[in-house]
Amino acid sequence: MPSGIVSLLTDFGTKDPFVGVMKAVMLARHPRLSIVDLAHGVGAQDVAEGAFWLERCFRWFPAETVHLAVVDPGVGSARAAVAVSARGHLFVGPDNGLLALVAADGEVRTLDLAALGVGAPGATFHGRDVFAPAAAELAAGKPFAEIGPATRLAVAAPLAPPELAPPELRGAVVSIDRFGNAITNIGAELLPPGAMVRVGAAALPIVRTYSDLDPGQLGALVGSFDTLELAIRDGDAASALGLRRGSPVVLIGR
Amino acid sequence: MPSGIVSLLTDFGTKDPFVGVMKAVMLARHPRLSIVDLAHGVGAQDVAEGAFWLERCFRWFPAETVHLAVVDPGVGSARAAVAVSARGHLFVGPDNGLLALVAADGEVRTLDLAALGVGAPGATFHGRDVFAPAAAELAAGKPFAEIGPATRLAVAAPLAPPELAPPELRGAVVSIDRFGNAITNIGAELLPPGAMVRVGAAALPIVRTYSDLDPGQLGALVGSFDTLELAIRDGDAASALGLRRGSPVVLIGR
Amino acid sequence: MPSGIVSLLTDFGTKDPFVGVMKAVMLARHPRLSIVDLAHGVGAQDVAEGAFWLERCFRWFPAETVHLAVVDPGVGSARAAVAVSARGHLFVGPDNGLLALVAADGEVRTLDLAALGVGAPGATFHGRDVFAPAAAELAAGKPFAEIGPATRLAVAAPLAPPELAPPELRGAVVSIDRFGNAITNIGAELLPPGAMVRVGAAALPIVRTYSDLDPGQLGALVGSFDTLELAIRDGDAASALGLRRGSPVVLIGR
Repeated sequence: MPSGIVSLLTDFGTKDPFVGVMKAVMLARHPRLSIVDLAHGVGAQDVAEGAFWLERCFRWFPAETVHLAVVDPGVGSARAAVAVSARGHLFVGPDNGLLALVAADGEVRTLDLAALGVGAPGATFHGRDVFAPAAAELAAGKPFAEIGPATRLAVAAPLAPPELAPPELRGAVVSIDRFGNAITNIGAELLPPGAMVRVGAAALPIVRTYSDLDPGQLGALVGSFDTLELAIRDGDAASALGLRRGSPVVLIGR
Repeated sequence: MPSGIVSLLTDFGTKDPFVGVMKAVMLARHPRLSIVDLAHGVGAQDVAEGAFWLERCFRWFPAETVHLAVVDPGVGSARAAVAVSARGHLFVGPDNGLLALVAADGEVRTLDLAALGVGAPGATFHGRDVFAPAAAELAAGKPFAEIGPATRLAVAAPLAPPELAPPELRGAVVSIDRFGNAITNIGAELLPPGAMVRVGAAALPIVRTYSDLDPGQLGALVGSFDTLELAIRDGDAASALGLRRGSPVVLIGR
Repeated sequence: MPSGIVSLLTDFGTKDPFVGVMKAVMLARHPRLSIVDLAHGVGAQDVAEGAFWLERCFRWFPAETVHLAVVDPGVGSARAAVAVSARGHLFVGPDNGLLALVAADGEVRTLDLAALGVGAPGATFHGRDVFAPAAAELAAGKPFAEIGPATRLAVAAPLAPPELAPPELRGAVVSIDRFGNAITNIGAELLPPGAMVRVGAAALPIVRTYSDLDPGQLGALVGSFDTLELAIRDGDAASALGLRRGSPVVLIGR
């Protein structure tokens, strides 16, 4: 049974009407859909950050939710437009690595534009012209097998998983949140007791929660999405440490 | 049959609770309405940008959608509050030029505040006190003819259409999107083959899509809303060219 | 009868997926809920600003709306998680002062996590793990008396009400809106005819609406939420006056 729910994850921001028009297209096809913004503040064209958030967040939605993800620097080029059925959810977006982290063991299909009634999409906004129509139809109950022919993803996720180089483990900052916390791709399961975090010249203790830090103290903790996160109590850790998306983070003392 | 859908376009941003309270007012009247954010990042008090986006975007929504638009520097003054029925959609907002681009061949009515149960609106927030009640009633099925007495728009759109000065055509930047693309009011239908774009001292080629540009290269293309747009591959064209809303853009070589 | 409506007020911003995941959790429990963003731009960890907006805005929603408010610098510490029934609405959030302004004469209950099926919440994101489940259940009709045992709020609102020091009245800036208007906690009912406003060395007249000011002129007026607000016609009053949240504002000449 379709969930009737579509989640939206993009790098479009909320200033411009791009997201609103994608919703319009979906409602014009199926007025009763429930459309939920997951986030639109993925770094511009940062496929790695988008892939990370999609994988970390989809599981909180009801089963059979359709996740429409658009971070699409190659729009208008030859990259494929696909849908993925995996882990009880559906995903729609470009085949550029964005869906790669959720697609393991899943089924992938190339979107059949003619069957969607999408004759000649524009060259700049496939979120509206291609992906929104496909997501709307799937959420309204179109069988996955009818969305297009079976295929495989051609492009892997752009960010390598954390690399083990004993006695170190090397990961990276994937996202910097509104508070300046630096969220890494180092999963909680990789953190043995007694580990420390090294960022540039700084060594940070690992604590349980923000409240365990003194005001102004830097530390690392397992964040809300079960990965290591660098924080400063009542402050902006990314600024304090000069971190950006992609900055290396090293786990030591394992 | 009413669509039950209201789109919202404002310059209120999303930081403050202004948009949320407008939605509250509509739901307090009709709890089953479906309310969609078109955009809230129109430049502060920039009626020209709001009018442009409204005209470019309304058509993607289902027929009979009510478009509630509030960019209202004259709130509290004598400017009229109106509703417009045009092109199969309904529009509600101030008569300050914001609705002028969509109102051609349409029917215009002054909002009858007493009939709406809006006795004495405040002087600062007609989005909540006047326009939201009217939009909610129309979306819930109130006949357009009962929204108030027939009138005409008093104020034209603030931005002149592109001016033909052979061999040139002179338009302007209307909006700068999150990626730094500069969106102009020069419609795709005005672009003959072989044209170039001049911005200040720079001459830009016209290409089909972002991917046709080399990294770092400046160019112009028909954007997502069928007007000319200035872009730089993997960069911020508005910053690179020093463009702002209102900056002149010239089409040459026609 | 439950309203089926949840409003959301947080300091999470809209860049990251925190708000989206809270919605996912609610929809996974009750897919037909109507979830409305009140605002997510409360200053980071600014409980005073959150408490102010919650109190000023809740009344515009339909009766029985559940207001989910999360500004939670103490997440992971021992501060309680509560629900409040007051003034015909329901409120869910941390007991840190955020709900204090709306709770007068209300009934307060500690959230019973086991009854909510929330076994061991994480230490960093109770908006998702604790408050969203409680709000969803209340909005779907769970009786308030079953949400947990009766208690009292332990923490008062962080910002003192305006202080009368004749012939002056001393208040503060609570919020600065997108346009740079500085919104104070001085209620309209405290403004006698002939009063002036002093901010630092500047004395500002009190006018009825923005249009009563000349372009570039500073003034004060009763704002959209019935408190005194400092504005400059077509400009940014907070920048012009060097105001921040918490800045003192004095009413003179009473």
